[in-house]
Amino acid sequence: MVTAAAYAVSAPDAKFEKVTIDRRELGPADVLIDVKYAGICHSDIHTARNDWKGTTYPCVPGHEIVGLVADVGSGVTKYKPGDRVGVGCFVDSCRECSACVAGEEQYCIKRVVATYNSPLPDGSYTLGGYSTQVVVTEHFVLSIPDGLALDVTAPLLCAGITLYSPLRHWNAGPGKQVAIVGMGGLGHVGVKIANAMGAEVTVLSQSLSKQEDGKRLGAHHYYATSDPQTFKQLRNRFDLIINTVSVNLDIDRYLSMLAIDGTLVELGLPEHPIEVRAFFLANNRRSLAGSMVGGIPQTQEMLDFCAEHGIGAEIEVISADRIDEAYDRVVASDVRYRFVIDAGTF
Amino acid sequence: MVTAAAYAVSAPDAKFEKVTIDRRELGPADVLIDVKYAGICHSDIHTARNDWKGTTYPCVPGHEIVGLVADVGSGVTKYKPGDRVGVGCFVDSCRECSACVAGEEQYCIKRVVATYNSPLPDGSYTLGGYSTQVVVTEHFVLSIPDGLALDVTAPLLCAGITLYSPLRHWNAGPGKQVAIVGMGGLGHVGVKIANAMGAEVTVLSQSLSKQEDGKRLGAHHYYATSDPQTFKQLRNRFDLIINTVSVNLDIDRYLSMLAIDGTLVELGLPEHPIEVRAFFLANNRRSLAGSMVGGIPQTQEMLDFCAEHGIGAEIEVISADRIDEAYDRVVASDVRYRFVIDAGTF
Repeated sequence: MVTAAAYAVSAPDAKFEKVTIDRRELGPADVLIDVKYAGICHSDIHTARNDWKGTTYPCVPGHEIVGLVADVGSGVTKYKPGDRVGVGCFVDSCRECSACVAGEEQYCIKRVVATYNSPLPDGSYTLGGYSTQVVVTEHFVLSIPDGLALDVTAPLLCAGITLYSPLRHWNAGPGKQVAIVGMGGLGHVGVKIANAMGAEVTVLSQSLSKQEDGKRLGAHHYYATSDPQTFKQLRNRFDLIINTVSVNLDIDRYLSMLAIDGTLVELGLPEHPIEVRAFFLANNRRSLAGSMVGGIPQTQEMLDFCAEHGIGAEIEVISADRIDEAYDRVVASDVRYRFVIDAGTF
Repeated sequence: MVTAAAYAVSAPDAKFEKVTIDRRELGPADVLIDVKYAGICHSDIHTARNDWKGTTYPCVPGHEIVGLVADVGSGVTKYKPGDRVGVGCFVDSCRECSACVAGEEQYCIKRVVATYNSPLPDGSYTLGGYSTQVVVTEHFVLSIPDGLALDVTAPLLCAGITLYSPLRHWNAGPGKQVAIVGMGGLGHVGVKIANAMGAEVTVLSQSLSKQEDGKRLGAHHYYATSDPQTFKQLRNRFDLIINTVSVNLDIDRYLSMLAIDGTLVELGLPEHPIEVRAFFLANNRRSLAGSMVGGIPQTQEMLDFCAEHGIGAEIEVISADRIDEAYDRVVASDVRYRFVIDAGTF
């Protein structure tokens, strides 16, 4: 058994506290990772604060994990101590169903084991990356290419793949008009990736306050959605709209900006059902779709792509004692653009 | 000017009456068609009864038109008198925009002229196929292959293309699991076409009352949606679900039957917005899409496909004096599966 330091919350309204946790003994297929950085994702906050219900306490969030391999089980072939590795949103799945066989483990029909707050067969549950060490089975460990600095890579393990996967799936590339709705933790990575894929990129943000950043990161156009003219001007424009905003928007207005065969991909899980008038789908044969992170093979592809194109997240590195403050700032949209915790301070 | 007999309603609650109407003089690109049969589509009823508002009276519905060419304008090259031809839901468009150039005239950005109740530049409006004759510009006239009987072909011009287009667009074919929701005027043609494309076809109908028909027409499986077990049993099953039902359904339950990358296509325009919980889209990367008839090139492709596979609609031929009765029976779902008016009785 490995003993690790971690930061945990003991209740929905509790502050983070340093705790000691046990990591499982290294099995033949396991990799022990010394965590170097852990990104803060909005999902961490929803889970820590029990917004989605079902949180088991104490809760250690964190599914944007990067570090160095400390030790490997006897059967591990892909990694050796010292390797730069990452772990994303899930750490196990059935590995037998059609989804798993297709490398789309996130859609495993039987059981996706999330990196934190997921029940395990022995009655315990997973504890995430706000910790000095994690043990993860080899299949779910990603290799971080040399070209990528570890700190800016952490958010790629969730935010990065969440954007890369739909951009790739719906063929963002040269000649394609792509809009990213929301210029936050997810959106800003989407701008970089869509630009690197060769698409013509438009940011649709509430205001123009982040316009300069957006253009610096790769947006060719930037519009404020608070201006009704935006929707008129961009009618029938986009092949792909990726919505990273998790509050309910008037989706019909966004659908009306899709060209023939265009797709609007919802990445957030807004509180209320999305309301769509069928006409806005029928006209131009539009689609409203969803997408959930990406499978292990595609996550590796994303890391390799980001290394090739020099893409990392825009981050603010914090020490572990500032997690509570960081959470409040994420909720207030006061971060450009992702917090990453220095694991040396756990 | 050509004078034609037609059946028209003069008010939302009026009965059909025989009237005399003028058809425009034959222009160089025009085709004069002696109508032989006109199908009754549910849209005819919605328009005649002003359910969608905006109906101009007197109204002559009918956009499932088949007949023989009687005369052609001086510049017409595709047709000659005696040719078997059809006209569908629209009779003109701008023919310049990207949609028109792509042969997707139904999505013309500037002006799609519907076959009936559509305003014309001279202040008049189009009158449809419940008539002895129509004049239609050559580009919007379809050729009916010899193998197809005229009467069973009429409903293909709307119901047929409305199903063919999404089945083709979303790649219904061998190895694909396709479900058709609703076994009515649209659905029954969808079963035939999906089967001919080589897909494994399932009908999802309110009850099992039309099961025998469904299987005879090409369904491999038939389930009642009134049975909650259906939704459990078919979870994650389909690559494509085509919903022909125009009242609001609990779409999340239908989405949950889609496999990875599956698409649910809404063909109806239900009265209320469709409500979708984002989770059902995110899981399995599902899409909710719409589709509106099909362009002229694809409508011709559909007719050729139906001729090749011996596909016509299942119809009940009626005389013009029974239109009101037929409308009531369509609303009561009391038709197997489409009414077609014998134009010899106009």
